Amino acid sequence: MAQQARAVATRAQIVLGAAELFEKQGFVGASLGTILENTGLTKGALYFHFKSKEELARCIIAEQHATSIASVEAIGREQASAIEQIVMLCHEMARQIVHDPIVRAGIRITLELSVDDQGPADPYLDWINTCEHLARRAVEQGDLEPDIDPPRFARFVIGAFTGVQTVSQVLTQRTDLEHRVDDMWGFLLPGIMPAHRHPDIGRIRTARSEVAQRN
Amino acid sequence: MAQQARAVATRAQIVLGAAELFEKQGFVGASLGTILENTGLTKGALYFHFKSKEELARCIIAEQHATSIASVEAIGREQASAIEQIVMLCHEMARQIVHDPIVRAGIRITLELSVDDQGPADPYLDWINTCEHLARRAVEQGDLEPDIDPPRFARFVIGAFTGVQTVSQVLTQRTDLEHRVDDMWGFLLPGIMPAHRHPDIGRIRTARSEVAQRN
Repeated sequence: MAQQARAVATRAQIVLGAAELFEKQGFVGASLGTILENTGLTKGALYFHFKSKEELARCIIAEQHATSIASVEAIGREQASAIEQIVMLCHEMARQIVHDPIVRAGIRITLELSVDDQGPADPYLDWINTCEHLARRAVEQGDLEPDIDPPRFARFVIGAFTGVQTVSQVLTQRTDLEHRVDDMWGFLLPGIMPAHRHPDIGRIRTARSEVAQRN
Repeated sequence: MAQQARAVATRAQIVLGAAELFEKQGFVGASLGTILENTGLTKGALYFHFKSKEELARCIIAEQHATSIASVEAIGREQASAIEQIVMLCHEMARQIVHDPIVRAGIRITLELSVDDQGPADPYLDWINTCEHLARRAVEQGDLEPDIDPPRFARFVIGAFTGVQTVSQVLTQRTDLEHRVDDMWGFLLPGIMPAHRHPDIGRIRTARSEVAQRN
């Protein structure tokens, strides 16, 4: 059992070390050799857990995916309207990017592959589907104008968030990301909510998921 | 003179060949060797014009920048309100991405470097500054709500556009980009324009720069 616990810890150490390098140097730029140096482990220990750089990258993307799913489920358990849950979703994505090196590495690998035509669509589609589902409920709850098309709206929200975080990273190393996501909702909510719901905008903008933050 | 014209043509051929490879394989992935193969030129001809892959990348970013400046100036010559010029700006960026391989290569190189903390901020800042200047005029012209903060608004517009095009590329190889940019303005304009200007929204959404398209 002690041996198994040690193996789990070693594996986690490798994944974190690889994530730090993928984040800094990208998937193409990072080599197994430098990942080895960064983790301080032997070649044998690394190869026992991962056969290749590709396998490490897939593992990081899978962990990032698991984190996403967990936060979507946590936000679903919040006692909040669907539009508040959409705002929570964006702020939770921002919080994870700022605080979790595995999420940052996953995003860097995904973005790096996205500039190619064969880029991975799944991470985007997951968030778009979640947002679409919430947007449909927000229309039913009267918080979104009835002519808002949930699939198009969801695709715009995830696209806008993706670029807002790119620009925040380039200009401020993401130190202003939370404020920029708040700006996004400040510009967006008055146009997508029926006028009689506008008094709720202040409350909706400050919606954050405490359940997801505890994960 | 014939020799000089040939040199200019050769240089353009190298830049286009390099752009095609940078777009497909990225800056890190593309090598001078494969660029050479793609242009069908001799090593001597390539090195006569460019000393390194970095120099080629700088040249592509400079050409992309020149294209941007030209379209900003063209849009400035349009007989259109400032808010229409902002919409034109986004659609012109989208049109260039779809039609100009040098712009696509420049964006790929820029995005590839942007995932790093030392990513180049200038391409974003140029567009943000142009958009901020137009947003200030749009507030004066009464097309934007007086409480809209031009610097924040400009940063959001360029961020949102950046991500909308990333998601469009991943999901549809940018075939739906014009529609997604139109969606963006459809969601955004009702919230940022004073209610009595809302009848103009249809016209503003269809604003395109014919001057820039002729460049």
